[in-house]
Amino acid sequence: MTPIVIRTDKRAAASAIATLAEVGVSTSHEAMGRSGLMKPYMRPIYAGAQIAGSAVTVLAQPGDNWMIHVAIEQVKPGDILVVACTTDNTDGMFGDLLATSLKARGGLGLIIDAGVRDVRILTQMGFPVWSRAISAKGTVKATLGSVNVPVVCAGALVHPGDVIVADDDGVVVVPRLEAATVAAAALKREANEEEKRRRLASGELGLDMYAMREGLAKAGLVYREED
Amino acid sequence: MTPIVIRTDKRAAASAIATLAEVGVSTSHEAMGRSGLMKPYMRPIYAGAQIAGSAVTVLAQPGDNWMIHVAIEQVKPGDILVVACTTDNTDGMFGDLLATSLKARGGLGLIIDAGVRDVRILTQMGFPVWSRAISAKGTVKATLGSVNVPVVCAGALVHPGDVIVADDDGVVVVPRLEAATVAAAALKREANEEEKRRRLASGELGLDMYAMREGLAKAGLVYREED
Amino acid sequence: MTPIVIRTDKRAAASAIATLAEVGVSTSHEAMGRSGLMKPYMRPIYAGAQIAGSAVTVLAQPGDNWMIHVAIEQVKPGDILVVACTTDNTDGMFGDLLATSLKARGGLGLIIDAGVRDVRILTQMGFPVWSRAISAKGTVKATLGSVNVPVVCAGALVHPGDVIVADDDGVVVVPRLEAATVAAAALKREANEEEKRRRLASGELGLDMYAMREGLAKAGLVYREED
Amino acid sequence: MTPIVIRTDKRAAASAIATLAEVGVSTSHEAMGRSGLMKPYMRPIYAGAQIAGSAVTVLAQPGDNWMIHVAIEQVKPGDILVVACTTDNTDGMFGDLLATSLKARGGLGLIIDAGVRDVRILTQMGFPVWSRAISAKGTVKATLGSVNVPVVCAGALVHPGDVIVADDDGVVVVPRLEAATVAAAALKREANEEEKRRRLASGELGLDMYAMREGLAKAGLVYREED
Amino acid sequence: MTPIVIRTDKRAAASAIATLAEVGVSTSHEAMGRSGLMKPYMRPIYAGAQIAGSAVTVLAQPGDNWMIHVAIEQVKPGDILVVACTTDNTDGMFGDLLATSLKARGGLGLIIDAGVRDVRILTQMGFPVWSRAISAKGTVKATLGSVNVPVVCAGALVHPGDVIVADDDGVVVVPRLEAATVAAAALKREANEEEKRRRLASGELGLDMYAMREGLAKAGLVYREED
Amino acid sequence: MTPIVIRTDKRAAASAIATLAEVGVSTSHEAMGRSGLMKPYMRPIYAGAQIAGSAVTVLAQPGDNWMIHVAIEQVKPGDILVVACTTDNTDGMFGDLLATSLKARGGLGLIIDAGVRDVRILTQMGFPVWSRAISAKGTVKATLGSVNVPVVCAGALVHPGDVIVADDDGVVVVPRLEAATVAAAALKREANEEEKRRRLASGELGLDMYAMREGLAKAGLVYREED
Repeated sequence: MTPIVIRTDKRAAASAIATLAEVGVSTSHEAMGRSGLMKPYMRPIYAGAQIAGSAVTVLAQPGDNWMIHVAIEQVKPGDILVVACTTDNTDGMFGDLLATSLKARGGLGLIIDAGVRDVRILTQMGFPVWSRAISAKGTVKATLGSVNVPVVCAGALVHPGDVIVADDDGVVVVPRLEAATVAAAALKREANEEEKRRRLASGELGLDMYAMREGLAKAGLVYREED
Repeated sequence: MTPIVIRTDKRAAASAIATLAEVGVSTSHEAMGRSGLMKPYMRPIYAGAQIAGSAVTVLAQPGDNWMIHVAIEQVKPGDILVVACTTDNTDGMFGDLLATSLKARGGLGLIIDAGVRDVRILTQMGFPVWSRAISAKGTVKATLGSVNVPVVCAGALVHPGDVIVADDDGVVVVPRLEAATVAAAALKREANEEEKRRRLASGELGLDMYAMREGLAKAGLVYREED
Repeated sequence: MTPIVIRTDKRAAASAIATLAEVGVSTSHEAMGRSGLMKPYMRPIYAGAQIAGSAVTVLAQPGDNWMIHVAIEQVKPGDILVVACTTDNTDGMFGDLLATSLKARGGLGLIIDAGVRDVRILTQMGFPVWSRAISAKGTVKATLGSVNVPVVCAGALVHPGDVIVADDDGVVVVPRLEAATVAAAALKREANEEEKRRRLASGELGLDMYAMREGLAKAGLVYREED
Repeated sequence: MTPIVIRTDKRAAASAIATLAEVGVSTSHEAMGRSGLMKPYMRPIYAGAQIAGSAVTVLAQPGDNWMIHVAIEQVKPGDILVVACTTDNTDGMFGDLLATSLKARGGLGLIIDAGVRDVRILTQMGFPVWSRAISAKGTVKATLGSVNVPVVCAGALVHPGDVIVADDDGVVVVPRLEAATVAAAALKREANEEEKRRRLASGELGLDMYAMREGLAKAGLVYREED
Repeated sequence: MTPIVIRTDKRAAASAIATLAEVGVSTSHEAMGRSGLMKPYMRPIYAGAQIAGSAVTVLAQPGDNWMIHVAIEQVKPGDILVVACTTDNTDGMFGDLLATSLKARGGLGLIIDAGVRDVRILTQMGFPVWSRAISAKGTVKATLGSVNVPVVCAGALVHPGDVIVADDDGVVVVPRLEAATVAAAALKREANEEEKRRRLASGELGLDMYAMREGLAKAGLVYREED
Repeated sequence: MTPIVIRTDKRAAASAIATLAEVGVSTSHEAMGRSGLMKPYMRPIYAGAQIAGSAVTVLAQPGDNWMIHVAIEQVKPGDILVVACTTDNTDGMFGDLLATSLKARGGLGLIIDAGVRDVRILTQMGFPVWSRAISAKGTVKATLGSVNVPVVCAGALVHPGDVIVADDDGVVVVPRLEAATVAAAALKREANEEEKRRRLASGELGLDMYAMREGLAKAGLVYREED
């Protein structure tokens, strides 16, 4: 592939993004019909962050963070940097200097299918990162990659401008054109869950609330007392 | 295997369970002669929880949490749900709604050889979970499994009614009929350790306290000064 | 190999060690020309600890912590115990009794390419450990290993007396004879970063600050607007 | 656990074992209702071996093969040695000398949730081994384990005298008392498959042969032409 | 996502596919600018097969092979079935009956990011499979997925009709519309390599043949004699 | 580290190397006191090769094979190239062109803690490779590393001129200065094993041949008949 940087203004509607940030990853993922998740090895460097924003994508070489510098110029306020790597790599491609720069550009956080470092400072800065590893391993700036091309990051396809939702449960990708629909479905799902939570808390069984007993019997489930 | 739910009242004595909760995993495991541990990939979703309770076991299909709903009906106050899977799986089979229901039934926590989600809410609820993964991946309710059959969970054999002890060090299974004996041995071990801790803290060497020097010499250990 | 314990007084200069503790892992690693790191599977049992000290090395058998008892006698104030294993192992070779003893001898922490247990107590003690696993699995005391021989720990070569630097980013090994040089280079690097941080925080791009644009163009990077 | 060796003569019927050897792993596993499989990391050291025999079980310490020597005395003609380890370990616990001895006793092969070595000679001997690793790593003979106790090997529960079936697809455990039933079900399944194979080879679709179309439509499957 | 089957006739030119089959994976991958590879955990069940064909894609649930039956109807002579899974799974989703059916439809082979079984028979049939695992684990037919939608398989994006090239080096995906260009570039690359091979075989160094010495010196490489 | 190439003529005695090639990995490793092994993820690309030679070491960047070209110039007849990587990497750094060149220089084989490609051709050439992965992933030539410096390869320390022994059991490193001693010990060990093999083949138990019964009883092993 020719190394390329695509300049683009395409973003989903701010209201859809705000809703997705509020409902979080699990609800967004369910609202999409259970798709779009990155693999569960992607973990936050600290607990409690919950964000949504538009993807600026990077395809980088293993052990080389040159393209992250290039990508930051393409970041607009509210964006999230999404870094994929041409092969599995855990090097610490991103640290507090890059975070300072990304934050200054309005970037909300980083999703990186590689390593991150300076995690204590990043935590103090309140700059959230989801990564496959924490590693101090330094990188070179020698080989080109691309910015704002479609990438496969931690098993999920990400197009520039897609909405990234990330929290303690992981990272999900909502395609830009589906963001509004997914946000609406997510809100509906949430409203629906409140009532369920109340009933379950009062001791009602899911078996009854969801009317599962007939289906279970039909599928052949047998109950018996212990011998 | 025929899908089956076994109803059983067998539990270990409450006093033994209480003792095991107090001494925790490492001491319980040593008191059993160093057996019964689950593999170390089982990690708590938050630090500091330490529980013991009786196992209600679930054998589930990958990506399918139907049987967890079934199992919750079998839970009595003080029980711990133990979910094994027919093959390795990291899907988020359990979230805050199931936790609300399990807690309402008196369940103390969850051990799951798969994924868990809504971990921020579970943490806020103070509902402890030990799992192999955190994942937002949603599951189906399509295929039967079994409840309260013996299962292999994270490498350890668990019978319904066995005592599960879980803390920051991992998860250990104490067979129901051995619970009282193990609890007694654990208490004895703890009393014994207090004195050792004091002596070591004062600078006495383990080599001397445990009288290891002769054994080491006999085994052939050589000391020499650096060249 | 003959099981052996080497007695040695060789340590790096205290001032160099103090500097390395202050700058931490990522900076020390960069100051060494990006070498000396242990693999990123080595993780701290709690966040926030940052230490540097002289390595007392242990080569242990899998599932056997006999030599750790032997090694503690060789520890001097300011030292860090570094435990390598003859094969991959995750057993809980080290717990709160050993930590009490090691601390009483002036040991600052533990680096172990195996498992650790009693992590809640270790955290309460403020005794930092970097390990490949947390596991309650008990060990035997049956087979000899060696103390203060060169070991490969988590992929890094460690000689007795080398400086170990450990923090939330991982663990790096600074050869004893290079410690002063590396410390000096690290300080210089840090001074240099302060100014960069300020410029990036004000919104200046790394592309401009590092004068990367020419190099990128020369390497063939193409920019284009989205279709 | 107290180290113990149990002497036992319990074996399944020879005819059932012979049938299971003939039908192999996948069919035996299906005939058991899809249970009993070891994890897929258990791989044969050479392709093409297909055996069934009665399990003589060993619980060994990591890096210690003492109990394998003990176990061989308990092996009768037609038996298969099944070695589990108290923790994950890949050391080469078994080589050509042990194989010579095991073969001389009538042992048919080895299942080991650890490493094996001398694999070229074992292959020349036609002595089949299924293991989690190939490793030259030598072991000690220092710590006791047990022989002919129930073990969890590669995720499967094995009782002494259970039938082990192993081929290129992996390893399955058939409980001794179910061996005849499973063998009968397996033969029936095989007969049934021959006709299916013929029809599929002639181009008939599984969708039609298994009458799946209605179920798929009912479940909501939609067909459409590409845009 | 709504479960869907897309019927499509789009295929790359037969001549391009034939060329890609001939040059194999490494050359095709280089001819694409080093992109398109699946992760290296995808391994052939036997050595020596080398194929290229058009992708019919399947998105399946873990432990469920219902959609593979559906997909086979969409296969045309010369196609290759590409099975992705909604989460990581190693179950044996495909065996000799499905292979018989797929072969009868003209399918050339299978790429599956999950497990395969009956590998001895598949090898005898000469039916090549690249998979992440070999496993006898049986699957259910309970939950829908999709056929001929874009999938991420082993880290690579695959659209229906893309050309799959697979050999002992792994699996690469050539986008349908680029197949002719890549095939041409691959042939050119091959012609070029013949001459290089001859020169290297005669003892000429790559350093000289590729004129690397100046670049190395400029980058700062230093030569010195051993002390 | 400064990128450097060290020119050296140091090799172990040819006779010692020849002996080590003959006895193979497991015996060499035992003769060294069970040390020096690389991790068991290092596997040969084809079965049956057994070699020993002198290490020419390479420290490479992930995804970059520039230094392998540099290293080949340093290879003398009978040498083996040993490639370590600054971080975990599986890219296909070495293929048939490099093998042709290395073979022309008299190189016997390759040990690489990364990936290799063109494995079918390498097999046809009879050029043995032990690697952590097989991968078609192409690499760049952008960043310097070093040649003939000490490296940690797959967990083992290798100095230039050390003897590498490799066969189907894995790879072991024999320090240059110990090669003659190890070779002698290995021959002695082999002679000793021949007699043991004969006795075990005749049905004598290892328990008796090694006189283990007393030690087992003393350690507390209990025998009992099954209930």
